[in-house]
Amino acid sequence: MQPNHSLLDTLLELQILDRVPRSGWMLRGVPEPESVAEHNWHVVFLVWILGREVEGLDVLRAIELAMIHDLAEVRLGDLPRTASRYLPRGVKHEAEGAALLELLASRAGLARELYEEYRRGETPEARFVTACDKLQLMIKATVYESWGSGALAEFWENPANFPDDELAPVREVFEALRERRGAWGG
Amino acid sequence: MQPNHSLLDTLLELQILDRVPRSGWMLRGVPEPESVAEHNWHVVFLVWILGREVEGLDVLRAIELAMIHDLAEVRLGDLPRTASRYLPRGVKHEAEGAALLELLASRAGLARELYEEYRRGETPEARFVTACDKLQLMIKATVYESWGSGALAEFWENPANFPDDELAPVREVFEALRERRGAWGG
Amino acid sequence: MQPNHSLLDTLLELQILDRVPRSGWMLRGVPEPESVAEHNWHVVFLVWILGREVEGLDVLRAIELAMIHDLAEVRLGDLPRTASRYLPRGVKHEAEGAALLELLASRAGLARELYEEYRRGETPEARFVTACDKLQLMIKATVYESWGSGALAEFWENPANFPDDELAPVREVFEALRERRGAWGG
Amino acid sequence: MQPNHSLLDTLLELQILDRVPRSGWMLRGVPEPESVAEHNWHVVFLVWILGREVEGLDVLRAIELAMIHDLAEVRLGDLPRTASRYLPRGVKHEAEGAALLELLASRAGLARELYEEYRRGETPEARFVTACDKLQLMIKATVYESWGSGALAEFWENPANFPDDELAPVREVFEALRERRGAWGG
Amino acid sequence: MQPNHSLLDTLLELQILDRVPRSGWMLRGVPEPESVAEHNWHVVFLVWILGREVEGLDVLRAIELAMIHDLAEVRLGDLPRTASRYLPRGVKHEAEGAALLELLASRAGLARELYEEYRRGETPEARFVTACDKLQLMIKATVYESWGSGALAEFWENPANFPDDELAPVREVFEALRERRGAWGG
Amino acid sequence: MQPNHSLLDTLLELQILDRVPRSGWMLRGVPEPESVAEHNWHVVFLVWILGREVEGLDVLRAIELAMIHDLAEVRLGDLPRTASRYLPRGVKHEAEGAALLELLASRAGLARELYEEYRRGETPEARFVTACDKLQLMIKATVYESWGSGALAEFWENPANFPDDELAPVREVFEALRERRGAWGG
Repeated sequence: MQPNHSLLDTLLELQILDRVPRSGWMLRGVPEPESVAEHNWHVVFLVWILGREVEGLDVLRAIELAMIHDLAEVRLGDLPRTASRYLPRGVKHEAEGAALLELLASRAGLARELYEEYRRGETPEARFVTACDKLQLMIKATVYESWGSGALAEFWENPANFPDDELAPVREVFEALRERRGAWGG
Repeated sequence: MQPNHSLLDTLLELQILDRVPRSGWMLRGVPEPESVAEHNWHVVFLVWILGREVEGLDVLRAIELAMIHDLAEVRLGDLPRTASRYLPRGVKHEAEGAALLELLASRAGLARELYEEYRRGETPEARFVTACDKLQLMIKATVYESWGSGALAEFWENPANFPDDELAPVREVFEALRERRGAWGG
Repeated sequence: MQPNHSLLDTLLELQILDRVPRSGWMLRGVPEPESVAEHNWHVVFLVWILGREVEGLDVLRAIELAMIHDLAEVRLGDLPRTASRYLPRGVKHEAEGAALLELLASRAGLARELYEEYRRGETPEARFVTACDKLQLMIKATVYESWGSGALAEFWENPANFPDDELAPVREVFEALRERRGAWGG
Repeated sequence: MQPNHSLLDTLLELQILDRVPRSGWMLRGVPEPESVAEHNWHVVFLVWILGREVEGLDVLRAIELAMIHDLAEVRLGDLPRTASRYLPRGVKHEAEGAALLELLASRAGLARELYEEYRRGETPEARFVTACDKLQLMIKATVYESWGSGALAEFWENPANFPDDELAPVREVFEALRERRGAWGG
Repeated sequence: MQPNHSLLDTLLELQILDRVPRSGWMLRGVPEPESVAEHNWHVVFLVWILGREVEGLDVLRAIELAMIHDLAEVRLGDLPRTASRYLPRGVKHEAEGAALLELLASRAGLARELYEEYRRGETPEARFVTACDKLQLMIKATVYESWGSGALAEFWENPANFPDDELAPVREVFEALRERRGAWGG
Repeated sequence: MQPNHSLLDTLLELQILDRVPRSGWMLRGVPEPESVAEHNWHVVFLVWILGREVEGLDVLRAIELAMIHDLAEVRLGDLPRTASRYLPRGVKHEAEGAALLELLASRAGLARELYEEYRRGETPEARFVTACDKLQLMIKATVYESWGSGALAEFWENPANFPDDELAPVREVFEALRERRGAWGG
């Protein structure tokens, strides 16, 4: 956290993401819930495997956005959804941005550029990552339900939708997921 | 989280504090770290057992302050110490206050009164709870070190001190703790 | 466990209550079940928040009884309900009393007085703590069921009832809980 | 727990031994400590592999004694060593015997015979099982220490010794263990 | 793993079986799943308690086969059922045999003899162990289902059957289990 | 596992990687060890952040190789290092390749191409991923040691080295890591 945080400092600190549980699962009693590192992995994978289908999408750029989209959690924790009721969105995003810059101090320019693109959500790549982030949530909820977790139906009350054209492959997997959940009795 | 959050809603929600790990331990790799509920228990116990020794201290009042001092974590998570670098203290306290009021909606008047007294830290009872909160941290760090955790020495670099007169019993236990840790090779 | 167990010894030893799982949950396969420290916290909270509603109840006294009601578990373990079939009740209570006195050796007079009042169950405060102890059990069972645990219905076969006048607030929450469980399909 | 506990009831109930942690490790902060089922496995293995070396030892009988030596824990919990200070030995053994008989109701005669032989400790087989039970404790303590647990040195202050002739193979492994621990810096 | 692996080396290494989760449960989201050591314990117990009923069965021999039937997992891991699709059965068995021989280097003759008998499956004892191994799987699946695990019904689609005469006691428990599961709503 | 494994099937199955612990940590008693999903995340991150420094490296290609390098573990488990003693390298790689193809059935061509490039190790991208895989292992070992794990020194006995020119950024971080570990007393 020193100003001269080296790349090694960053890498050592990022290992801790394994110990930051995704709060949404934890607070609903899911046993041994997904860590932020695991979430990140699944999002990056989705961005890659689905992004390849989207004509004109810069897949490497989208992967880079996914790579940094939740790193700040290592310093801020994974704020539960309820926290957004009490922490104004602007405040939260500013904190995330500042934490990310210091965490990746040795790559500050890159970090700033990526974070701002992701937050603004104006490029197809940024929107694609946001969509994959939501899709991963719904996939995990479905898996946890099938394993026996009982308090996750609320995620399906107002599920994400994926209107934009470039999100077609995300939408398609999401529709298949909804159908699968139905077939599993959800 | 509805406006008409009943006392039962509150009680059901508070069970979740068992699943909110104290982030300081979690981020330093302590296995199966203390939950916020466990922390709360140890603080309330300290406030009671030590507070009884302090002439003139309103022990019930101090216990009440301890009882609510970390409840908001169930909606905000246990923000790691590093988060305070990015979330201005005022913002954090305001969020905690607002979350606590909604969480204890059926006892809103009581919640507000207690939270404000605790945050202002002007009464002997409020200062006593803050001191016990710190003492509990140091006791736990010492126990975890003795069990084999390796990354906790930093807690002793700038340990709390307990200058006020009414904190004499806290100070005394703390000094015994420091000595014990020395004897254990810490 | 030495005769001259100091207050610091007591405090260090009590941290271990975090690692004593409540056996009723553990033996029914609840994942990451509540510890005795967590149970204690929820009971003390109930005693406080509900006790405030009862005219004439000495809330501080009731809290003190709650504070010590399960401390001996750190030396005896949390004996499962089935154990009472094989360990005569008198034997168990005597062991708990003796363990508590040695655990709180530096406050032996206080410990003896509180334990005896709690065990005799003749004061309104002692009965109130016993009722909150049972209520906490039913609240937790309901939460665990909603999270997906499947072997907890038996708790509702002969649930506690709370006949005494001074237990009105406990009874009220319990009735709301039973109704909530019904609404959740239990 | 019904009087007509069938063999299937017994087998279903015994699966729960996986969830009964050995209290000695749990209370010393060992993460994810051995269950009673795991302990039982290691003891049975020792009895078999070492017992084969002892001329005249009835290995099958010794295995049978090992098989039932800790089953009652599924109903009594694994009482911590400290409990023996408060529960007279006779009381504990009587409770274990009674619990075992009801647990193995469909094989009550066998259960009684084996338990009594084990408790009396008068046959070479009974003494051999007791010795292997202790040896397993020391092996596990050594492994946990090597993995990083810090609070286990006390086990070596008054370690078991194994004087009897028929315990030669136990003694031999124990001496090799002590030496190994020394070589590991313990 | 040295050529001169002593018995103590073996015993220290076998403690690790506590940390090898049975992959079938782990991959189906069962929380805190059974370890290989726990599985071994339950199989040995079944072999003993049921084997005693079978006229002419060499119970000690059957126990010995059970004792070693899954030891190699400590070096190979518990290969998931899906792995058998990609690792030819012969390769897997050869690896297990080789690992077992080196693990039990100080008892290599015994290890080879037992492993070969178990793998060939030609003696009543070997078949009995294989049957108990399957029965234990079904018992555990039933317990986990009753505790709330949701993804285990597939085990009942093509359950084991136990045709041989000497497997009568295994078959009987299995039929009782199937009935019990039905009564539990499975 | 059906021949017509859809992309949704793949994605649901990959969530299970969260439950596959890295066997090297698990078998050395590291509590709550890294999952394969977490490992994958850290490797992909390293490949990206370090690969950007290497002139001429196709970073997207390297990321793609990293993305699939350990997916087969979801069907094969994470084979411990000791397993390679008993499973010929060719057999293991063939099994991994076959499992990967079926797992990613809907993208079989891509999967085959990537896997073969990774295994052959002839392109700079393939070698870079292999180097980052090893670096991640050493970073994690260092973090776990600092948290208190005691059985990891052996990783430093024959640590990886990174001779190739294009591995300069990997080598640099590795040297800084070795120095840091020394400063931490390792």
